[in-house]
Amino acid sequence: MASMLLSRQLSCCLQQNSRLLVFGHRYISQAAAKIDVDFDYDGPLMKTEVPGPRSRNAEAVHFFCNYEESRGNYLVDVDGNRMLDLYSQISSIPIGYSHPSLIKLLQQPQNLSTFINRPALGILPPENFSERLKESLLSVAPKGLPQVMTMACGSCSNENAFKLIFMWYRNKERGRNNVTKEELESCMINQPPGCPDYAMLSFMGGFHGRTFGCLATTHSKAIHKLDIPSLDWPIAPFPRLKYPLEDFVKENQQEEARCLEEVEDLIVKYRKKKKIVAGIIIEPIQSEGGDNHASDDFFRKLRDIARKHGCAFLVDEVQTGGGCTGKFWAHEHWGLDDPADVVTFSKKMMTGGFFHKEEFRPNAPYRIFNTWLGDPSKNLLLAEVIRVIKREDLINNAAHAGKALLTGLLDLQARYPHLISRVRGRGTFCSFDTPNDATRNKLITIARNKGVVLGGCGDRSIRFRPTLIFKDHHAHLFLNIFSDILANFK
Amino acid sequence: MASMLLSRQLSCCLQQNSRLLVFGHRYISQAAAKIDVDFDYDGPLMKTEVPGPRSRNAEAVHFFCNYEESRGNYLVDVDGNRMLDLYSQISSIPIGYSHPSLIKLLQQPQNLSTFINRPALGILPPENFSERLKESLLSVAPKGLPQVMTMACGSCSNENAFKLIFMWYRNKERGRNNVTKEELESCMINQPPGCPDYAMLSFMGGFHGRTFGCLATTHSKAIHKLDIPSLDWPIAPFPRLKYPLEDFVKENQQEEARCLEEVEDLIVKYRKKKKIVAGIIIEPIQSEGGDNHASDDFFRKLRDIARKHGCAFLVDEVQTGGGCTGKFWAHEHWGLDDPADVVTFSKKMMTGGFFHKEEFRPNAPYRIFNTWLGDPSKNLLLAEVIRVIKREDLINNAAHAGKALLTGLLDLQARYPHLISRVRGRGTFCSFDTPNDATRNKLITIARNKGVVLGGCGDRSIRFRPTLIFKDHHAHLFLNIFSDILANFK
Repeated sequence: MASMLLSRQLSCCLQQNSRLLVFGHRYISQAAAKIDVDFDYDGPLMKTEVPGPRSRNAEAVHFFCNYEESRGNYLVDVDGNRMLDLYSQISSIPIGYSHPSLIKLLQQPQNLSTFINRPALGILPPENFSERLKESLLSVAPKGLPQVMTMACGSCSNENAFKLIFMWYRNKERGRNNVTKEELESCMINQPPGCPDYAMLSFMGGFHGRTFGCLATTHSKAIHKLDIPSLDWPIAPFPRLKYPLEDFVKENQQEEARCLEEVEDLIVKYRKKKKIVAGIIIEPIQSEGGDNHASDDFFRKLRDIARKHGCAFLVDEVQTGGGCTGKFWAHEHWGLDDPADVVTFSKKMMTGGFFHKEEFRPNAPYRIFNTWLGDPSKNLLLAEVIRVIKREDLINNAAHAGKALLTGLLDLQARYPHLISRVRGRGTFCSFDTPNDATRNKLITIARNKGVVLGGCGDRSIRFRPTLIFKDHHAHLFLNIFSDILANFK
Repeated sequence: MASMLLSRQLSCCLQQNSRLLVFGHRYISQAAAKIDVDFDYDGPLMKTEVPGPRSRNAEAVHFFCNYEESRGNYLVDVDGNRMLDLYSQISSIPIGYSHPSLIKLLQQPQNLSTFINRPALGILPPENFSERLKESLLSVAPKGLPQVMTMACGSCSNENAFKLIFMWYRNKERGRNNVTKEELESCMINQPPGCPDYAMLSFMGGFHGRTFGCLATTHSKAIHKLDIPSLDWPIAPFPRLKYPLEDFVKENQQEEARCLEEVEDLIVKYRKKKKIVAGIIIEPIQSEGGDNHASDDFFRKLRDIARKHGCAFLVDEVQTGGGCTGKFWAHEHWGLDDPADVVTFSKKMMTGGFFHKEEFRPNAPYRIFNTWLGDPSKNLLLAEVIRVIKREDLINNAAHAGKALLTGLLDLQARYPHLISRVRGRGTFCSFDTPNDATRNKLITIARNKGVVLGGCGDRSIRFRPTLIFKDHHAHLFLNIFSDILANFK
């Protein structure tokens, strides 16, 4: 099978009259035949080291890309190197590069206006915009959350979700009383009671964005937070699970119980100092912080704690949402009795925004508002993306391809335990740990030069964030290449 | 002249076999002939009251729009009403609706990829992206600010500009010392010294966005701020000028001196309580807060105060930028010796972002970062917008058309002083006050039903925010209609 793959790559290589950096694949995984993604390439094709001569390296830039030539799961750089992309622009490309359905959408004359006439959506929406939301976001709304608002990006989504929660909490406290003159005046100068001393509780290792409100709940890396003034909001520990999970059942349960207890203690402790925890924010899988998982039971109990203390429960699905975990929303794995109160999204959804329960609806217009409030052109793209996801059953595909990937990673872990540990994942949302930062970065660089783009997270993890059209054969293709890398790693 | 206009409208009306709500125009202004905007409509055309039967009113929504039929300066609603748009989606449509140059841009096959393959711009930029920035944003960079970063919206732009300023300030304080372990650890839990107690000084009446950092500097309306926790940052008074300016020279100078003195006092007072003012943020014209102007001299002195106290000087050009004041950036009117340190933009620029001095460049990658960091498709549109602006000399047009508008408004003020006062403006960025909120809103509603979309600001002002292709004849068209409204106002 591997040789089939190799010969296909070589023939492709010969056709292109270019140099291909491949060698004998040692991995035992099958190289599943490419099936039904017609616009995808056949495999990686490397012409130079990456970043290559045409990629000028400027600070954070990895390399410069040729997006016109990028297709499906393959990212092409300016030097003509074609790489299997398992990072997909920090998890933000839903159905691959240059998807024919999206090209077609752009070519339809009736869609032009949406791309060039951007409205102030909150006051002057386009005709049928609510119908269009029904075709797109509302068709995939998490159960129990019938309301949606769009925003421009993930940070704005969380910022505005916090505001929604604070308004909801204050209205609860206010009861039937009217807003006082003192509130209206004091809020103008940033003081209580108009600006109450409310807080969002977040978790160590979490990432929710980098604007001021978000950043006060982000605790993944110092580089995000250093030198930026912040808010004294409570931070709970996130469980640090031991792997393999089946060998540490009791220890992991204890760890989760410890973290949940700390959440309750913090809520009480902060209330004592007159700082009210109005909401709890959490990622279903802490992504930027290192792909940290907790059990479904942990999240169910956390939801119960939120309800018990009257706090809103905000699930940040900016990175986990959109189908990659094998369900459209990662929190759907938990089997909550009472839905989350607010769920934020962005990235693969192409537009930012949040879903929320009816009772969180702002009690007056203009309370949650900005000039653009999202972008109908992104919603147009998203509607098409969702049609493709449904038509091609891509959520189940993510579950299936994820299983192939995870199985292969577990196998590699068994063979290279000194390099790979704590293999974990849901759907294609997989990851593993390496011994340290230097090894991790070296593996990413080598993989890139073998035609595979990987991303890091936490201090020594590698995360997989392929598109939703990542299939079993892509998993095997990767596993073959990575197996060789590990076998030759010094 | 007015009759020419009327007959043109009527013939247009007859052609369309629809009902036109016009009557004899009393304004003495000439109705300049329509000149060179080929894709613009001839004038308003009203078929129903607005919002009409097909516009379902939902909270903040004014009416639903037919953007496909909207052209040039005219916004068409779902009931087929065509209105001269002097608000242009809260000042965010640069060269009118459905501009042929933008349609052409969308139709070019080589541009498709940019609209469907959105990159993580900070790590994987498209080929030639820096060249493309030179064609767009950098071709209009304010003098002395050679660096630019793009963001998704105005709020993100200000949030990140604040961060840039705080990092710069801390690095200044740090000198040659390295970041300490204590800083790295404390920042992870939102505490000093890693999260220092820095502040941005803002002005009462200012509006800089609604995310947490921005909102702490926004002080225009209580509805924006109520129930949202905030930061104890200093707020200075913004001058309240008396009009006509020539009659109150001394009073206005004293008022500006008082505000500047308060700025210095606040910086000193906050430093005494260990809260360091790292930067000052100001709009060239306070927009949302009521179109409040100050003299060029005020801003020059404020810039001097910022320098004297080691604070960064941040000019928020989100609403004023892009040419509407008769210069590309409103702060160019001031004639600063030392440029502003950071200038933020969004709206008419189609992408958010900020320009900054070289010395404000972050000292490490990923310090100012997010997944998308703007959107190359918006930059593509902006590059074309800037080509149109230059080709059609639209900045000078804004100065010229603005003069026609302002002259007409001053004339109306002279004739209807009980309805119109404090007429003011720069370029087409004009406004006037009405006696009160109710009168203002009534005038806006009547104007809408006569085919003119206006926007309010502050507690009783009407602001003009037309596109850059708003010409003298549009000004006269508006003045004629509004003159009739004022004459008949009860």
